[in-house]
Amino acid sequence: MTVPTIGVFDSGFGGLTVLRALMERFPRARFAFLGDTARLPYGSKSRRTIARYAAQSAQFLVREQGAEFLVIACNTASALALDAIQDAVSVPVLGVIEPGAAAARGASRTGDVLVIATEATVQSHAYLAACRAHGLRAIEKACPLLVPLVEEGWINHPVTAEVIEIYLNELRAEAAAHSMDPDTLVLGCTHYPLLRSLFEGAVRPGARVIDSAESVAEAAVELINGRAAPAAEGAAMETEVRCFATDSVEKFERLGSRFLGQPVGHVELIDLGG
Amino acid sequence: MTVPTIGVFDSGFGGLTVLRALMERFPRARFAFLGDTARLPYGSKSRRTIARYAAQSAQFLVREQGAEFLVIACNTASALALDAIQDAVSVPVLGVIEPGAAAARGASRTGDVLVIATEATVQSHAYLAACRAHGLRAIEKACPLLVPLVEEGWINHPVTAEVIEIYLNELRAEAAAHSMDPDTLVLGCTHYPLLRSLFEGAVRPGARVIDSAESVAEAAVELINGRAAPAAEGAAMETEVRCFATDSVEKFERLGSRFLGQPVGHVELIDLGG
Repeated sequence: MTVPTIGVFDSGFGGLTVLRALMERFPRARFAFLGDTARLPYGSKSRRTIARYAAQSAQFLVREQGAEFLVIACNTASALALDAIQDAVSVPVLGVIEPGAAAARGASRTGDVLVIATEATVQSHAYLAACRAHGLRAIEKACPLLVPLVEEGWINHPVTAEVIEIYLNELRAEAAAHSMDPDTLVLGCTHYPLLRSLFEGAVRPGARVIDSAESVAEAAVELINGRAAPAAEGAAMETEVRCFATDSVEKFERLGSRFLGQPVGHVELIDLGG
Repeated sequence: MTVPTIGVFDSGFGGLTVLRALMERFPRARFAFLGDTARLPYGSKSRRTIARYAAQSAQFLVREQGAEFLVIACNTASALALDAIQDAVSVPVLGVIEPGAAAARGASRTGDVLVIATEATVQSHAYLAACRAHGLRAIEKACPLLVPLVEEGWINHPVTAEVIEIYLNELRAEAAAHSMDPDTLVLGCTHYPLLRSLFEGAVRPGARVIDSAESVAEAAVELINGRAAPAAEGAAMETEVRCFATDSVEKFERLGSRFLGQPVGHVELIDLGG
């Protein structure tokens, strides 16, 4: 294998921020991205249902698209279904949560971190557990307005800055009530990196903002470069990207470019069944 | 029949604003409310799928709960599946869109109205068509941030007021570009009545705000009082309300009281299948 084939999975298209971070690190790779847009949001569904959907999606990427590595670019699926995905396929699988917690460990001096995520991810307390395993204390908060604000395109918008300020103030008040001194903010949702500059403006000077998309891409570099043979010298090739979705292809194509940082191009509609 | 049994259906629990308006008008009635929360949001799904889900939900209310009248308290289902629901059951069915357009006709002096709704409702152009049938010109706008703001509980919140101002300014600019002079705003989503006071503060003096929850309740009074025998004099009884949901019962109970204006009480979990 000279060029790795990397499957990237999300319930929607927020995970394109992870694909973008991967593409920057793997200039020679084949990527297959699947957004299970027909069945989103995963956040309101039970663990069992999410596990079934995620396993089907992973199998599509491995069996139909030949993925040799899988990156789960969805916090909810990483939080609730990583085991089920690993059971469903025989290739290495990376979720976003452990790399995010590991990056927070590397960034924090006080050992206290703030985690913002969707309601389902917060309710799973997956970040809390992963942070604890790294010796960190974490406070989690669901920020349900941020995904709609990003999808509305209000990326550098005063209303979005105001909403972030309100959420962070609530988090800081809770941290103070627990006598914690957080110096690191983990963006626990693949939509949030689009708001990174607003977050950086809202945290205290010197505090670090951890983008789980970047963190999982770093983890993928370690995993894949250790296993895939390097490409032959001079074997120039373009990165190949194919995008698949289970519904709403038009919305994917229209909004996806914001997340990918370049046009998404043609998105292929597939059917994974009920 | 002395006391009518009225079935009220929504994809979620926003339709509780319709139930509330109905309860004010029918102090003696049995209500069965179903929120198909396992399968929301309907907005991102195809017409065929929405029709199937809505027909199953309607059949539950008629066959299992004995509803003699159905009120579709969901703009998306009213816009895309009213025919399918009418085909699926043999009782009279009212949707929210026609009563909303009729109320706009009664309110507008200029004949130009603004309609705000969810993305799916706007894309169906059901309000546009219903307004045209009443001789009105309408401009529709999707306001995807308003439902998350209501669900976050930011009902009388400066951020929500700012978002409404931005959306209405965009609508006014579009109306001006079409040389229209709108004097009426139709709230085409069952979440929006909770923001009514903010809308009333944002429209121009003298402009009218049409709440489709109120409009459909008025239409239900006409329909049902014409068909149901009046309750016997002195036959005092409490209004009976049973609420059902297909998932997320806890969230329904927690948030539903905001919409109903009183505690929702126990919500029964039911399974309508895939």
